[in-house]
Amino acid sequence: MHKKLFIPGPVEVRKEVLEKMATSMIGHRSKEASELQKSISNNMKKIFYTESEILLSTTSGSGLMEGAIRSCTAKRAAVFSVGAFGKRWHEMAVSNNVPADIYEVDKGKAVNVQEIDKVLATGNYDFLAVTHNETSTGIMNPIEEIGEVVKKYPEVIFAVDTVSSAAGSKVEVDKCGIDICITSTQKAIGLPPGMSICTFSDKAIKNAEKVKFRGTYLDLLALYKYIKKKDYQYPSTPSISHMYALDYQLDYILNTEGLENRFARHIEMANIVREWGKTYFELFPDERYISNTLTTIKNTKNISVSDLNKKLGLRGFQISNGYGDLKEKTFRIAHMADCTVAEVEELLSNINDILQLK
Amino acid sequence: MHKKLFIPGPVEVRKEVLEKMATSMIGHRSKEASELQKSISNNMKKIFYTESEILLSTTSGSGLMEGAIRSCTAKRAAVFSVGAFGKRWHEMAVSNNVPADIYEVDKGKAVNVQEIDKVLATGNYDFLAVTHNETSTGIMNPIEEIGEVVKKYPEVIFAVDTVSSAAGSKVEVDKCGIDICITSTQKAIGLPPGMSICTFSDKAIKNAEKVKFRGTYLDLLALYKYIKKKDYQYPSTPSISHMYALDYQLDYILNTEGLENRFARHIEMANIVREWGKTYFELFPDERYISNTLTTIKNTKNISVSDLNKKLGLRGFQISNGYGDLKEKTFRIAHMADCTVAEVEELLSNINDILQLK
Repeated sequence: MHKKLFIPGPVEVRKEVLEKMATSMIGHRSKEASELQKSISNNMKKIFYTESEILLSTTSGSGLMEGAIRSCTAKRAAVFSVGAFGKRWHEMAVSNNVPADIYEVDKGKAVNVQEIDKVLATGNYDFLAVTHNETSTGIMNPIEEIGEVVKKYPEVIFAVDTVSSAAGSKVEVDKCGIDICITSTQKAIGLPPGMSICTFSDKAIKNAEKVKFRGTYLDLLALYKYIKKKDYQYPSTPSISHMYALDYQLDYILNTEGLENRFARHIEMANIVREWGKTYFELFPDERYISNTLTTIKNTKNISVSDLNKKLGLRGFQISNGYGDLKEKTFRIAHMADCTVAEVEELLSNINDILQLK
Repeated sequence: MHKKLFIPGPVEVRKEVLEKMATSMIGHRSKEASELQKSISNNMKKIFYTESEILLSTTSGSGLMEGAIRSCTAKRAAVFSVGAFGKRWHEMAVSNNVPADIYEVDKGKAVNVQEIDKVLATGNYDFLAVTHNETSTGIMNPIEEIGEVVKKYPEVIFAVDTVSSAAGSKVEVDKCGIDICITSTQKAIGLPPGMSICTFSDKAIKNAEKVKFRGTYLDLLALYKYIKKKDYQYPSTPSISHMYALDYQLDYILNTEGLENRFARHIEMANIVREWGKTYFELFPDERYISNTLTTIKNTKNISVSDLNKKLGLRGFQISNGYGDLKEKTFRIAHMADCTVAEVEELLSNINDILQLK
């Protein structure tokens, strides 16, 4: 039996989007391929509220995160981490011999904006990496506030991982001064995994030009130069299936549902899960910075999360256990992409039934 | 109108395989995801005649090529190139600050096996990169002969790009002593682009352990360690759609068509195109090393290839112009994946009709 996914990616994908994954192939050096990528780029600019160029990568979001920190750190990177996916930025820098420091907070807390200011004021850094929405803890960092601080340091490239938030929660790239805003297909956009997308500012381009060894496949500057040289084509062969599905879904998001409606629906779903979580358990993250796309709940009743998930599985649902050492201590319910309010309510009512919560 | 693709990737994909791309999502940390990757690995071992481990990467073939030369060159890489895709190996090494030398031949020639012997005998190298099937010229290098030479140098990692040959032409990885054999989905395997696959020998693992900065996403050792640690799962989120389609297609290749039948069909198609090419034009590559999956034809009649392709397009077919500076001087007809003898004959008869060849 298929399980409806309430996990932080892959998400449940609409039937119409899945069908687009089955589109027949075209040559990747054809005019049609250029038109397809141009259409995606134009629509992604709207999703991100940006005038920056859009890059596509046939990788998961991790591919573009690594590409960003390696391609665009000419001096030293400061990684502000609030969980597992924040740490990943730093691990990627280290594995590429990119000088980097990591600044961490306790799990469930957001980044400390004053600390970012203090750290950037040292003048040691030309790259700042932040996770917008951290799915290991359920925190959504205050990206606009951070952006205000970063604007004081024009030499710093501001890179944000919006993998699990973009298209589900408003991210205004240009307003926040984000140079590289990264997302991927399998979260709030509502596609299968397999492609990632980022914005790439003129400032980021200039910094990349200072970096000598950027590699090839994940080199953001190479991706940028290729779309300019070859009219929005990809240096190797991209996942054309994902491009067809993405193009279709972005049109749906912008012109059928509407971006503001989509964001409002995400907040509505989040509110329902938060209320439920507070009624029967406790919320894990700092409520001032709680995620709009995923709720992490503290397992105050000491239930067996793994057992709950097995029982939910028999009813056709799947949620997520806590991440890493938060396993069994927390559990996570994602409410993103094309999931409806009714589906969220159906899930919670099944959990109530299994746990006999009243 | 859909154009039937006779280009060296993406290829025409069977309807049943396209439909598998539309499979509903599962969690990538589920038992089902492990089982799916295990099934693919077991079948890829048969395609490659190997006992080595199989790695999957959500990238084009270029991703794993870069990963291989960067992760597994501890000393210096020797790249033997017979065209554009051979050169790409070298460019990838350079962009990663991996010491490397390139040895080239005239276009249309195969590698010189004696030269490989001489170069490896210097003792300067611990990594050898060769393209099996070079689609820019239509050459298929004598991989078994090369393998015999490489066996004399046990410190050398033998890496082969079989992107456009694997599953269409026999590549016996263990017999040839290949340590890293790379392919991707969109060529003779017959899937859409978006995923690449390689073998990874114990010797390659040991060399990777000597390399300090291997990056993260394209680090072959990281992919290997993760499948061992997490029971055949992927470090980030893989393209589950491709995995479903690949699993389905490998079963078809091995158990419905049969590998030997598949190779024989590729040779039969190649023979038909070669005969046609010799009748009306000339063959471009050295016939002793001519490719089984793609035929490059010298444009001795000085036709407009671009015009021919436009006219073919109106009839629902697409071939390839020559690559790079061979454009208009040659043209290329790919005959790989699930393309049939009848379809090849239909294409040639349409070309005959357009060019009024008798």
